[in-house]
Amino acid sequence: MIRFSSDYSEGAHPKILQALIDTNMDQTGGYSEDPYCDLAKALILKALGAAEDAAAAAYGPEQARALAAGADADHPVVHFLVGGTQTNLTAILACLRPHQGVLCAPTGHINVHETGAIEACGHKVLPLPGIKEESLPYRHYGKITAEQIDQAVKAHYADGAYEHIVQPGMVYISQPTEYGTIYSLEELKAISAVCRSHGLPLFIDGARLGYALGSAQNDVTLRDLCQLADIFYIGGTKVGMLFGEAVVITNPAIAKDFRYLMKQKGGMLAKGRLLGVQFGAAFEPEGADCLYLEMGRHATSLAQKLKQGLVEAGCQLFIDSPTNQQFVVLEDSLAEEIGKEFAFEPFARYDETHGIVRFCTSWATPPEHVDSLLNRLKEL
Amino acid sequence: MIRFSSDYSEGAHPKILQALIDTNMDQTGGYSEDPYCDLAKALILKALGAAEDAAAAAYGPEQARALAAGADADHPVVHFLVGGTQTNLTAILACLRPHQGVLCAPTGHINVHETGAIEACGHKVLPLPGIKEESLPYRHYGKITAEQIDQAVKAHYADGAYEHIVQPGMVYISQPTEYGTIYSLEELKAISAVCRSHGLPLFIDGARLGYALGSAQNDVTLRDLCQLADIFYIGGTKVGMLFGEAVVITNPAIAKDFRYLMKQKGGMLAKGRLLGVQFGAAFEPEGADCLYLEMGRHATSLAQKLKQGLVEAGCQLFIDSPTNQQFVVLEDSLAEEIGKEFAFEPFARYDETHGIVRFCTSWATPPEHVDSLLNRLKEL
Amino acid sequence: MIRFSSDYSEGAHPKILQALIDTNMDQTGGYSEDPYCDLAKALILKALGAAEDAAAAAYGPEQARALAAGADADHPVVHFLVGGTQTNLTAILACLRPHQGVLCAPTGHINVHETGAIEACGHKVLPLPGIKEESLPYRHYGKITAEQIDQAVKAHYADGAYEHIVQPGMVYISQPTEYGTIYSLEELKAISAVCRSHGLPLFIDGARLGYALGSAQNDVTLRDLCQLADIFYIGGTKVGMLFGEAVVITNPAIAKDFRYLMKQKGGMLAKGRLLGVQFGAAFEPEGADCLYLEMGRHATSLAQKLKQGLVEAGCQLFIDSPTNQQFVVLEDSLAEEIGKEFAFEPFARYDETHGIVRFCTSWATPPEHVDSLLNRLKEL
Amino acid sequence: MIRFSSDYSEGAHPKILQALIDTNMDQTGGYSEDPYCDLAKALILKALGAAEDAAAAAYGPEQARALAAGADADHPVVHFLVGGTQTNLTAILACLRPHQGVLCAPTGHINVHETGAIEACGHKVLPLPGIKEESLPYRHYGKITAEQIDQAVKAHYADGAYEHIVQPGMVYISQPTEYGTIYSLEELKAISAVCRSHGLPLFIDGARLGYALGSAQNDVTLRDLCQLADIFYIGGTKVGMLFGEAVVITNPAIAKDFRYLMKQKGGMLAKGRLLGVQFGAAFEPEGADCLYLEMGRHATSLAQKLKQGLVEAGCQLFIDSPTNQQFVVLEDSLAEEIGKEFAFEPFARYDETHGIVRFCTSWATPPEHVDSLLNRLKEL
Repeated sequence: MIRFSSDYSEGAHPKILQALIDTNMDQTGGYSEDPYCDLAKALILKALGAAEDAAAAAYGPEQARALAAGADADHPVVHFLVGGTQTNLTAILACLRPHQGVLCAPTGHINVHETGAIEACGHKVLPLPGIKEESLPYRHYGKITAEQIDQAVKAHYADGAYEHIVQPGMVYISQPTEYGTIYSLEELKAISAVCRSHGLPLFIDGARLGYALGSAQNDVTLRDLCQLADIFYIGGTKVGMLFGEAVVITNPAIAKDFRYLMKQKGGMLAKGRLLGVQFGAAFEPEGADCLYLEMGRHATSLAQKLKQGLVEAGCQLFIDSPTNQQFVVLEDSLAEEIGKEFAFEPFARYDETHGIVRFCTSWATPPEHVDSLLNRLKEL
Repeated sequence: MIRFSSDYSEGAHPKILQALIDTNMDQTGGYSEDPYCDLAKALILKALGAAEDAAAAAYGPEQARALAAGADADHPVVHFLVGGTQTNLTAILACLRPHQGVLCAPTGHINVHETGAIEACGHKVLPLPGIKEESLPYRHYGKITAEQIDQAVKAHYADGAYEHIVQPGMVYISQPTEYGTIYSLEELKAISAVCRSHGLPLFIDGARLGYALGSAQNDVTLRDLCQLADIFYIGGTKVGMLFGEAVVITNPAIAKDFRYLMKQKGGMLAKGRLLGVQFGAAFEPEGADCLYLEMGRHATSLAQKLKQGLVEAGCQLFIDSPTNQQFVVLEDSLAEEIGKEFAFEPFARYDETHGIVRFCTSWATPPEHVDSLLNRLKEL
Repeated sequence: MIRFSSDYSEGAHPKILQALIDTNMDQTGGYSEDPYCDLAKALILKALGAAEDAAAAAYGPEQARALAAGADADHPVVHFLVGGTQTNLTAILACLRPHQGVLCAPTGHINVHETGAIEACGHKVLPLPGIKEESLPYRHYGKITAEQIDQAVKAHYADGAYEHIVQPGMVYISQPTEYGTIYSLEELKAISAVCRSHGLPLFIDGARLGYALGSAQNDVTLRDLCQLADIFYIGGTKVGMLFGEAVVITNPAIAKDFRYLMKQKGGMLAKGRLLGVQFGAAFEPEGADCLYLEMGRHATSLAQKLKQGLVEAGCQLFIDSPTNQQFVVLEDSLAEEIGKEFAFEPFARYDETHGIVRFCTSWATPPEHVDSLLNRLKEL
Repeated sequence: MIRFSSDYSEGAHPKILQALIDTNMDQTGGYSEDPYCDLAKALILKALGAAEDAAAAAYGPEQARALAAGADADHPVVHFLVGGTQTNLTAILACLRPHQGVLCAPTGHINVHETGAIEACGHKVLPLPGIKEESLPYRHYGKITAEQIDQAVKAHYADGAYEHIVQPGMVYISQPTEYGTIYSLEELKAISAVCRSHGLPLFIDGARLGYALGSAQNDVTLRDLCQLADIFYIGGTKVGMLFGEAVVITNPAIAKDFRYLMKQKGGMLAKGRLLGVQFGAAFEPEGADCLYLEMGRHATSLAQKLKQGLVEAGCQLFIDSPTNQQFVVLEDSLAEEIGKEFAFEPFARYDETHGIVRFCTSWATPPEHVDSLLNRLKEL
């Protein structure tokens, strides 16, 4: 059985695993207060284009606390957490007051696949109304627009009884989205601008960020994210690490005391250095050749190859995705046949005889796996 | 610098790391729905003395759901989480209704070192009153008694206005405690009995359980815990793994839907098989020689050697601990001198010229590290 | 200015106010532990058709606690709270475990007009999908069906990853709904049956219950509610009292310790006897002539007269409501003109030149107010 | 039976009840957006010595929102809520971020008698350590000091692992305290100064504030509270109203969006004008003769008379309280005998044959009730 069912089917990229092996018996302090985390933060800051002084500074917890007060796009603060749901709920908790909710796409991960983690922190998730995927071109699936945000905020205050309604307090988007689509730089700039005009922090879920950065169609850099978002994260769990998400905060009000929230919500790993070791390995060597970006390019180029092969084999795309997730309409008997050798994820029904399924590639996908799948498709 | 400052200073035991290396590129499903987790659960169930049919059964998520309904001491359910705070809050959340609180020692980890994680779930932590460590013999430090629990529950209902007061809803203890002391089987039986007489679930925090099980003075087995607790966990983070806690549930009301709570609170690891691989390696070979127990014995025997050496060097023990944590009274200038080469943790002031400090050994401590420390002490 | 803008524009019905005046200087215990509350509970129990022994019993807090354990449709438990949002959140909190949400209509009060009060208790509100008012006959507006509930629950468990999704844990409906429509006995029986088949408690928000009971089209009695719901309330704030909601619980798991939740959430009034005095006055004399039902009939009959007049004056009904709220399409200039003398509530835009507005009658509406409005309409 | 068991045994002061009667059938908007609330707020602002422009301004919800941004000691914002627990939890929620807790006396109402209402909002209550009533002079019972607050904050940051511990985020005190004692102006100034030096909002629970203001020993005015606290309330439930607490906020960060929190937590009364009518009546006529202060003087002078009589009858005071609550040591058989005719509240055991009991006077206590009690004591 070859698995295309998710991008977290394997362990860690061999280079990242090797870094863990090499440092295994070193003794360090806990809770990410160690030299590996300091180094990884410095490497990430450089990749973000952060001011040299910030990146150059020793970057321990005391420094993090000091920097938090003055955090901004040029002096962001970096923290490491373990997984996506944990990171989402901690970040959102840091942004909102109790009467506020988070605007997002109806398909946003926080709205549909986190067992109410955000509500369990006391906050209503506010899916933007009127988003009907079926009436949109593919490239908008899973996305929201600056205009929708603007309308939602204005609609809130237009209601005379607005204190009876949850106040929009921030915006959540995913890059890439849960449908594999990506925001263009122009779209992100418009969203960021409307958020700032309404005083709403913008949070970007980057659980699969590597696969956006690695897409040939992408025009949004890490540096751009740092300028446009108040808080975002660079996902590791789905991009080559055993686990780990690197949160970047540019808004000092959110950065303040963030480690307390990490601890309270169970996101402060005792052996925090494991996160530093992994992210350190992922952001070397410095620049466009770093492993993190390389893994993203690997997965998305294979996904594009897979997509092209599926189309050539006569399959209908549900979405023309530029990243590592491909959503395809498959005839049921064909799906059953392929399913004997290849794992993929059922997504939704398309019609009585067809389903929509998802194929994922990842940093770990060997090109031969894609070839095998395409060959089997041709046979069928 | 040699570190005795905590029991999570290194990575994983070489055998556990090797298991991760060996399985790294295997493809599996996520969220602990994989063969490694199934195997690890079966091994743990055997170690718990669970009924053979339970242990023999394939132990996937569907089975877990089915078993949850009928869970009991002979048919416990096992789940894997990432870290201690996360495990504590998820377990406590599973036990309580909203108006209930958790009885514990004033020094309980949930009361003092988790940034209000339990309160953030809506529940008051109820430290038992009248516990004055200074008036107790060492071996009671950090512990509570069946009698104290009984009195607290009776006092609650004796107040006519009891609906104005948080209702005691469960009991939390740690084995070993935060002071390194351990409950005897007799003490645990009494606590379990009083909990059952009042309908209170008993939760045992086993973050360092290996170091209780490995203590020469311990008479409480894993099988006993399974009979006496409603829910407890076998800690991995502090006992030889990169991270990981194995929760054992014997009470079906708590076991029901536990995976939903794990997910909501960020405790369901995407690459859950990493937990299964590690716990699988730790519980092999079956029986008293398994790595988990072996690591516990290693750390506690070195800690006893360290304790004896400290006493011989003229140091006063603050607690005569039978496990891997040793609390010692050190003269300040002596502490400063030792601190140049050895890391340890300041715990509290003792008097104007002395402090209480903690030395930890672990599965990773080489005997030579203890020798070095004791030799340096003799020199000074 | 004559107000039709809400059904809580005045104080209390004169008979209820008189009862407060008559008892003002009596001394009683607090927190609804007093003879007035006992009497009111006994009167309500009789109106519910509860077993004579339950109603006959002295009904103090100790009895309430004892009865809670055995509560059922024939032996319900009654509690008094202050207002609607508080009652909704307390009732829902009593029904759910942390990973569960509450199914409801998208227009349900808890979903749209309580500033996230349910989410602030940790629970996601789960509006049923696919409810498109515009495609339904009037009488379904604001309502949900047994079939929708059934489908939602089955859809939850059909998803293999259901632990990643909030579990439907209960059902919330309003009688009458926020649109003034009412459930028929047949509809309620079907909803109750499907809830029981899935083990979901059914909670009925009766903030305006008197106006359903008083409707000529209503065929659902208090006794029926007691048989069909697990918990519901008889609203006082909008039906003739200064404030107050009488919660009726028939499910012992929900009834257990309910007073703790009331206290914790701020719903246990210190001078609780004010609630007993008011509900006592409202449920006298016993039977169909009791003030509570009388007030309901008064308001709904005036509302029907108003509705008829509006239609005769050429206004288009938005909903053909059988209760005290009337939703009408008004041309904007007409609305402006009427608005100089009469207050009503803007509800939504209808088209470019028309709005939908709400007129409410209540227990307090003098017939002449309706006449004045209709006369003014005729003039215009 | 004559009741001295609480200060909420009766309904409302006749003048306040009359105001409710006089306005009963007036029609107004809901949720405290009405002229009665506006007037009451203006009267309270004058009593607080607020700037004339603030008090003179029409004071509706729109104004409240506008003023919130600029709130300060000279321009405070006033809101009305229903009861004490609700007010405490809403106020504290408004002050804290999720990782923060509230410092208070161990005997603080929020710590012991609100069923975990604060924890249910996610926040740990942090009773100050080392407060041992038995070693203090009477007048300190139930109180905390500026020094204790200062030490607690410094101790928090002195711990290197402070992110693992709940951060002190505000201070809660009661005036008068739960023991009937009062803070002097000097003490309050010191507490306020230390709070401001650490950036901690100071919240004063004034559920019985009238009985502090009315005490002959009191030197703290409403105007002082406005200068010293960030948020406090003027209690009505225990001081002559059916229910109601007037919250005063001087800190703009707390004042912002406060009405959203009121609504979410069930504290926004539909018929909000009932609160305005009552507070309006209580703060007339303007100045020292206003009913609110008069009620306070009435109750405390009778309580002093009662205290003197108790001492003369040979009873031992547990506390020499200057307000309306008197705590006395009574021999058990004497208590039993008195209890046949007079209700009072058992507080704690004193020794084997004596208990501590509480007698309360209130605005409603007739002088003859005190005489009767004292006469009966003399007989016994």
